[in-house]
Formats: sequence, structure tokens, C-alpha cells
Amino acid sequence: MRKAIGVFDSGVGGLTVVREIIRQLPYEDIIYFGDTARVPYGIKSQETVIRFSIENILFLLKQDVKLICVACNTVSSFALPVIKNHFKVPIVGVLSPGVREAVYATQNKRVGIIGTRGTVKSRAYEKEIKQLDGEVQVTAVACPLFVPFAEEGWLGGKVVQEVAQTYLKPLKKAGVDTVILGCTHYPLLKPVIRQAMGAQVALIDSAKQVAMEVKNILAADGLLNPRERGRHKFYVSDNPEWFSGLAKRFLGQGIKDVSKVDVNV
Amino acid sequence: MRKAIGVFDSGVGGLTVVREIIRQLPYEDIIYFGDTARVPYGIKSQETVIRFSIENILFLLKQDVKLICVACNTVSSFALPVIKNHFKVPIVGVLSPGVREAVYATQNKRVGIIGTRGTVKSRAYEKEIKQLDGEVQVTAVACPLFVPFAEEGWLGGKVVQEVAQTYLKPLKKAGVDTVILGCTHYPLLKPVIRQAMGAQVALIDSAKQVAMEVKNILAADGLLNPRERGRHKFYVSDNPEWFSGLAKRFLGQGIKDVSKVDVNV
Repeated sequence: MRKAIGVFDSGVGGLTVVREIIRQLPYEDIIYFGDTARVPYGIKSQETVIRFSIENILFLLKQDVKLICVACNTVSSFALPVIKNHFKVPIVGVLSPGVREAVYATQNKRVGIIGTRGTVKSRAYEKEIKQLDGEVQVTAVACPLFVPFAEEGWLGGKVVQEVAQTYLKPLKKAGVDTVILGCTHYPLLKPVIRQAMGAQVALIDSAKQVAMEVKNILAADGLLNPRERGRHKFYVSDNPEWFSGLAKRFLGQGIKDVSKVDVNV
Repeated sequence: MRKAIGVFDSGVGGLTVVREIIRQLPYEDIIYFGDTARVPYGIKSQETVIRFSIENILFLLKQDVKLICVACNTVSSFALPVIKNHFKVPIVGVLSPGVREAVYATQNKRVGIIGTRGTVKSRAYEKEIKQLDGEVQVTAVACPLFVPFAEEGWLGGKVVQEVAQTYLKPLKKAGVDTVILGCTHYPLLKPVIRQAMGAQVALIDSAKQVAMEVKNILAADGLLNPRERGRHKFYVSDNPEWFSGLAKRFLGQGIKDVSKVDVNV
């Protein structure tokens, strides 16, 4: 039976990951859930993020998905290490793929991480980088205003540039040559981040690597869909109009059909 | 029996109202609930804000409060008109007191409203102003970045100033002489808003009026507490540390004791 890939995020950010999955896996069906009633996760406690994540996973399992992609760095950092092994379905987070690419990319072994408060506080990136290469020095900073900037469409200009420069100062000072964009919203601010960091610094956007990992797992398990254009279904826990309105910016295409569901268990 | 005043908000913003209640009613006990697990409300749908608000009210009623103050403009605009009459306890919102002061203050009958998307979309302010004085022209704009600015402590400087100027342009153009700060976070940005609007424009911060209304209702019902310093208890649905950390900025004093509770019904 033809099954879909399940993807969830706290809101709209995960659409930047869906965009890449669609590009690499055009024949796959995708069921997306954005928890817009409880967005944002980045300022919430680990305990709460875990509870929300389990509810979101159970919702996707009810849709009979064959794999779950956690398109949210806060969940991947905070909750995934704790809950991943509870479930039979393969679960792919956005953390490890980005870490692998960063450790591969860095020349001077100084890597910067930017993300939400939750992601930075978890130190999950740092731990995973150290496991791969103990010599890499990690500098992590939270950029809390980047999410509202991305959602409000403030993607450039003097204001955003100045905030970016303020946030990224510690990374400049640490002399990192590689920065992981540790939040699915941040790819929208790539030009601003690039300008603040300088052209010689590599910016790692994990979406591409995540989609490759999804592809590899499905291929290994013989679960790839046959050659028939994939269908994409979008669910949110609140405000479908707000979500559709932002879809074009994050997904690169409009979404007509967004359904509202309640995943509270 | 000595009963407390219940106050709730989606997060920390309501503390600007608590600050004023403490100033005007130092002998009253206050029980505050901040729904930090589901903050912010400003981008959520009316249906969801109503559900959250009912849960919050039920939590405060369990604490046996004598009056509930809704220290959140989104709830006051979106939910209060619908749910206010369901409950026996007196419920005071932040909307009407601000409206009354603005209609009294305006000379040229042009009033501006700034608030969250939810508050602006509800048109609740506009309706209430028109009921008091049909001749007043209302211009309302959403300032979605003001809440993250206030919470992140970006209360001044070039960046915030430029965002404020961009947001407030329609109010300048409309020639308003009075602006209602329609979100409990905004008093922190008063200097920036004043600079953008000009010193001759009156800025209405409803907290003072709200505290007066609370006082009047309690006095009329013979429910004011005797002369003994009030006790203040703070509950949140998530992240007590984050809440305490912001308390100084919003309340004007630190909070030692914040308890986490689950209000999901």
C-alpha cells in the first residue's frame, strides 16, 4: 500500500524542509502537521516540548505514515533523543544531518550554531559534534528575533542587518568558518546572515541533508513510492489562513488546502 | 474570608497590569496565571483563544478568586465578549477602560490602535469606540514585532526605532492625536512609540484604568481586603525560570516563587 511521509513542526518553518523533500522525492506523498496552536516551541521547556512532540507523532501515526521527519530543530534537540526509541516507525530529525555536514565542511575546526533558546540551551548540537570530532570548538548563540522576522517577512534591510550583526558577533569573534542554521526558519534570512558573517563562512542549511537521509532510509527499506506524482496534505492545529499565507515564502509555492485538527490527547 | 484577585494573561505581558493593581490596591492578594506553554495568543484564531481563556478562568476559579482581571488585549478583544456572561464572578478586561480614556482624551476625534494581529483583526476596539462616540475615526495597525522586542529587551535603539516608524506610519498619516497601546507588552516600548508619534500625541496605557475599575467593583461589592499587605502568587503553564527572568522588566520587581501548573481540561 502506498504510504506517505509524515512531517511535523511547531508551525510553518518545517516547510523549508518539505520544499527540499519534494525536490528530491517528487513521487512521495507527504502529510505535514504544523502545531500552530502552540507555536513557538523555542521558548518552552523540554518537558513541554516532549509532550507536544509525542502528541504530534501520534497524530501522524494515525495517518499511517511510513516515516516521520521532525522538521523542527527545537524538537530534534530537546525531545528526539528522549522519545525516538519509543516508536517503531523510523524518525529522522534535522540535527544529525546538519552536524555531519558541518564537521565535514569546517577547515579550522571552529563551528558556530544559531538557533532558538531551546535548541541552544539543550547543547544537543554541541554534544553531537563532539561525538563526531572531539577537537571541534563549538560556539552557539540564540537568535530569538529571527523567527518573528522570517514570519513577518522582514528578510533584509538595515533593521534586520543590525540585529543579525548583534547576534552573530560572538561567532565572528570565535573565528568560526562554518555556521549551522539550527532553525528551519533561518534559511529565509540566509542573505542577511551571509552578509554579517562574510562570504568565506560556510552556512549549513540541513534541509538538503535531511531529505537525503529520508531518501536513503526509504530506499534501504524498499519503501520508495512508484513513479506517480506525490500528493501533499497539510494539517495545522490552528489558523489555517495564517499558515497558507506564509506557505509561499517558506515552501516556495502556495497551498490551497489546509485542514485544522486537534491533536491534544 | 479573604479572597484574592485572579489575573491571567497569555504570558508575561499581564505583569504590567499587575504592577498597577499592586500600586493602587496594595492590600489585595493576587493570583496570577501566565499561559507560557501556549504563548503567544496574538496569532491564534478566535476559537482557540476562547478555549484557552475558558481553561485559564476555570483554573483561577479553582483558586477561589473574587474577581478575574483579563490582563491580555487579545483575550479581551477576541474572547471576552463571547464568554464574559457565562461566569458568575466579575470579569474585567483591558479593553473598555482604555477605550473610555481614549475617547475622553482625543481632541480631533482621530484615535489610533496598536496591538497584535488578533486584537486588530477582531475590530473590538473600533466597535467599542464607535459605541461611545460614533464620530471618532479609528485607525488600527498590528505591530507583531513589538512583543518579541519587549520580551528580548530590545526597548530602544536604531533598530527598534525604525521598526516602530514603519509600523506607525499609517497612524501618523491618519493624523491621530491619541493612540491606545492595545497590548500589555507595549508600555515597555513607550519611549520608542512616543518618539515615532511625536510628543503631542497622547499614549493610552490601559493598566491604570483597569486597576481603577477593579478597585471600583470590589468597593461596590464590599470585597476590598482589610489593611494587611497583600500576598502575590504566580503560576505559569511552562518555563517558570523564563517567566521569573522577565518579571523584573514587566513587573518592576523580581519574583521568587513561580509554580508550574497544567490547566488543560
